[in-house]
Amino acid sequence: MVIQVDLEFLARDTGKAVGRGDLIIVIDVLRSGTTILNALTNGAQAAVPAMTLEEAYKLRRKHPEYLLAGERGGQKPKGFDLGNSPLEFTCQRVEGKTLVITTTSGTAALVRSKTAKWVLVGVFLNALAVARKAEQIAIRETIGVSFVLSGEKGRFSLEDFLCAGAIANGFASGKAHFSDKVQAALLVFKQAENNLIGNVMKAKHAEHLVQQGFKGDVAFSCSLNAFRTVPMYADGKIMLYQQTAPSSP
Amino acid sequence: MVIQVDLEFLARDTGKAVGRGDLIIVIDVLRSGTTILNALTNGAQAAVPAMTLEEAYKLRRKHPEYLLAGERGGQKPKGFDLGNSPLEFTCQRVEGKTLVITTTSGTAALVRSKTAKWVLVGVFLNALAVARKAEQIAIRETIGVSFVLSGEKGRFSLEDFLCAGAIANGFASGKAHFSDKVQAALLVFKQAENNLIGNVMKAKHAEHLVQQGFKGDVAFSCSLNAFRTVPMYADGKIMLYQQTAPSSP
Repeated sequence: MVIQVDLEFLARDTGKAVGRGDLIIVIDVLRSGTTILNALTNGAQAAVPAMTLEEAYKLRRKHPEYLLAGERGGQKPKGFDLGNSPLEFTCQRVEGKTLVITTTSGTAALVRSKTAKWVLVGVFLNALAVARKAEQIAIRETIGVSFVLSGEKGRFSLEDFLCAGAIANGFASGKAHFSDKVQAALLVFKQAENNLIGNVMKAKHAEHLVQQGFKGDVAFSCSLNAFRTVPMYADGKIMLYQQTAPSSP
Repeated sequence: MVIQVDLEFLARDTGKAVGRGDLIIVIDVLRSGTTILNALTNGAQAAVPAMTLEEAYKLRRKHPEYLLAGERGGQKPKGFDLGNSPLEFTCQRVEGKTLVITTTSGTAALVRSKTAKWVLVGVFLNALAVARKAEQIAIRETIGVSFVLSGEKGRFSLEDFLCAGAIANGFASGKAHFSDKVQAALLVFKQAENNLIGNVMKAKHAEHLVQQGFKGDVAFSCSLNAFRTVPMYADGKIMLYQQTAPSSP
């Protein structure tokens, strides 16, 4: 079989990927995807994405042990335990905890993909691991794969497109057929690969984060293939793949 | 001043670029943009884009001297003088003539941009010339520049995105600020530049044209910067820039 690999530029088009029955790889490099991956890799039990602050506060009232994490305008909202800086999510802070996470842009694509059977969280940090896992699942389930870029405030973002290319670059089965959008993402990544931080820094969102004092977050987010962990979103929460599907390959 | 340079992935979003008041660079590499450029460069007086076959036939009834050109499903429609193969548009066929051109995808972005003051036709063949002209006009008029990709049947096309990058690569004033989409196009082009035909051949539309026997058209369309002519769309017809604006620089 051939795995059809496609891409949606905007979170609002997540439904198109869901409609195709594809495995969905949600990408939000800066910063929620990177934050979720780092939190789970550092031992957090699960991350529950919430669309609104109200939803987050409500979840905490029901589960007082949950930690609230996220941002509005780049800053930690009132009453939250953690912001959206991946480096805050240390073992000491998050081990064994369930996090509720809500961000301006990053959680919309996740929440919109909740009816899909297979949803993975991909960033630069786990690009290769996500590619391998997505291929395995797509071949086993005979489904396609779609990247969905979270973008920033509904707009296309360069860093998420680059990341789609980084993941596409990791497809190794020789069974993947890339759409024009995925071909473009792959070319962009190959051109940027040798100076990933420098190229990500040209993105509007990265510039904005640097101005806000989050340069370290951008640099950390560009650590290509540093992790082998793959977050999966199912039943309303995100957990590492092996935890959610112990019987899978 | 800084020239804001943006991009619309799809012809149906042409109105967003028009709404910004930008100079619009309409891109349809395969094949209508290349065909129009070649026809005008070979001496055609003007090309009138038409959305439908009916509109084309109607224009000919009114102006029996017009030549009808274009395609449906890649083939020359009934009663047409010329198809949509740029190589058909020789001096012998088109010199001094006005053409009516209607294609499946290529003419939609043109027609949708008709209320914009400045609309240029950019392809690989005239990428550098279009970049220079667009910069001159944008600086003089203090407006932005938007690329609009014609795509294929309403979908994103790799070759048009690559071409936007080729044109962006020609901006030389140091006064252009590229959006994330334009940055991505530029990176794609730089990666593909040394094997432009090979990379364009990966595009779905190019594959399809090759299957239909139009490989020569694809190769010709990839002749980067072979021409210095710039078609401009104004008052419902496309003419070479110097013919339409003799007093401009």
